Amino acid sequence: MNAASTDQVAFVNGRTRLYGIVGDPIVQVRSPEMVTWELQRRGLDAVLVPIHVPEAEFDRVLPNLMRVANLDGLVFTIPFKQRACALAATLGPQARAIGAINALARGADGRWHGEIFDGLGCVEALRRAGVMLTGARAMLVGLGGAGTAIAAALAAQRPALLRIFDLDAARCERTAAMLRAASPQTEVVVGAPVVDGMDLLLNATPVGMLDDARLPFEVPRLPASLVVFDAIVMPERTPLLAHAEACGCRTVRGREMMRGQISRIVDFFEAGGAATA
Amino acid sequence: MNAASTDQVAFVNGRTRLYGIVGDPIVQVRSPEMVTWELQRRGLDAVLVPIHVPEAEFDRVLPNLMRVANLDGLVFTIPFKQRACALAATLGPQARAIGAINALARGADGRWHGEIFDGLGCVEALRRAGVMLTGARAMLVGLGGAGTAIAAALAAQRPALLRIFDLDAARCERTAAMLRAASPQTEVVVGAPVVDGMDLLLNATPVGMLDDARLPFEVPRLPASLVVFDAIVMPERTPLLAHAEACGCRTVRGREMMRGQISRIVDFFEAGGAATA
Repeated sequence: MNAASTDQVAFVNGRTRLYGIVGDPIVQVRSPEMVTWELQRRGLDAVLVPIHVPEAEFDRVLPNLMRVANLDGLVFTIPFKQRACALAATLGPQARAIGAINALARGADGRWHGEIFDGLGCVEALRRAGVMLTGARAMLVGLGGAGTAIAAALAAQRPALLRIFDLDAARCERTAAMLRAASPQTEVVVGAPVVDGMDLLLNATPVGMLDDARLPFEVPRLPASLVVFDAIVMPERTPLLAHAEACGCRTVRGREMMRGQISRIVDFFEAGGAATA
Repeated sequence: MNAASTDQVAFVNGRTRLYGIVGDPIVQVRSPEMVTWELQRRGLDAVLVPIHVPEAEFDRVLPNLMRVANLDGLVFTIPFKQRACALAATLGPQARAIGAINALARGADGRWHGEIFDGLGCVEALRRAGVMLTGARAMLVGLGGAGTAIAAALAAQRPALLRIFDLDAARCERTAAMLRAASPQTEVVVGAPVVDGMDLLLNATPVGMLDDARLPFEVPRLPASLVVFDAIVMPERTPLLAHAEACGCRTVRGREMMRGQISRIVDFFEAGGAATA
């Protein structure tokens, strides 16, 4: 079936370069439409497809999938972000700090390069909103996978103060140690949420997701100078963001983080995994 | 990246079922647009992508690729049609006769079923054109991969006479033996091309392809009752078909065979590799 046809669809053909998102389960992912949209918006003949690899099959399937010659990059989601590190010949600075990747790109030399963009997407969203991070004072609540990645990406911007909080004390200490190593010039403090004297408040807990009407902590009236970010994507306007808006604060939404991340991942794919800021 | 977005493209998402065409090289294939078009025309949330597997990697990549849980079928092209037989738990009748497959479908039981549709596409095109094959007298010229597949598919329709010709005498005898085994009620004759007394003339040689202005043999004036088929896709109207039209014959084009094949392959995929006529 190598011949011409008028029965064509525009988005896939023999020359199309492949990308995939690997997860288990896979049906819930949004990267296929979002990354493909961004690839094609940039004029690339490329598509990102869902690749459902059962957890038990990961170690034998992935190294072989990576031998497909027109496959240029992979995105990893739950439960593979840690295990995928072993597939990379080199790891970017965020990935080294966190011990996880969510993107793997084939370089011009054929080697695969890994990095994690969860936190970089947040930094990108804040940058696009005009928020200055270098020298800033930030309070981050929630240190799960997303929160840890956001902490590492913020640290790389050399804020003056990074105060972090999670109900899991051991996780707080682990993250603090990682941040101090990554950014010696940043004052890293573990402690209950405060907003006075802060420039930026970030929520990376799941509190406020979907029908959850709660705030992630007992939030007082906020100073209007505070910028408030929430990593939650659904709903777009979380209870925390609604409260912040009522206090006159500028807000940055989880969807902007996602857009920032998609953009950074496609940059990474286009660069063949070359170093990211 | 599991959240909703308005940045959506319609054709791929987390629930999309995957199909692939495997070849080396891959850029020349047309299945991605043609099969995807047919899948989506039938309302299936599915896409067929090009999968470039270097020849030396085939044996280790394919069995692992087939462990991807949302991959439901594969198409094989050059140089893999013979080797791919080893991947199938069961082979359809055409595949058994020829020793090659070009489609592999995952059944409801998780097993993979193989069949070759090159010849069945020709039979489908002739059937759609209203040509009666059972009891007919047919002359087939050219017994390469496509010609052998066409011969096998024609034999399954129990024609009265199948006369076959190729410059390679050993290939003629091998094909004749295969046809006699497949259809004992058909008279199978090896011999130079003749058109008198025939209902159907089929060209499966590459003579007449692209800029080649030659006829596949010294073709006399044709009786207007003859149906003439040419497997060549480019150009659509080959020198043989132009001559046939000038003689008042009905013609069936290579592109119709390709359309017939796509339709049969998608039937096969939809049926999870269940038996084909």
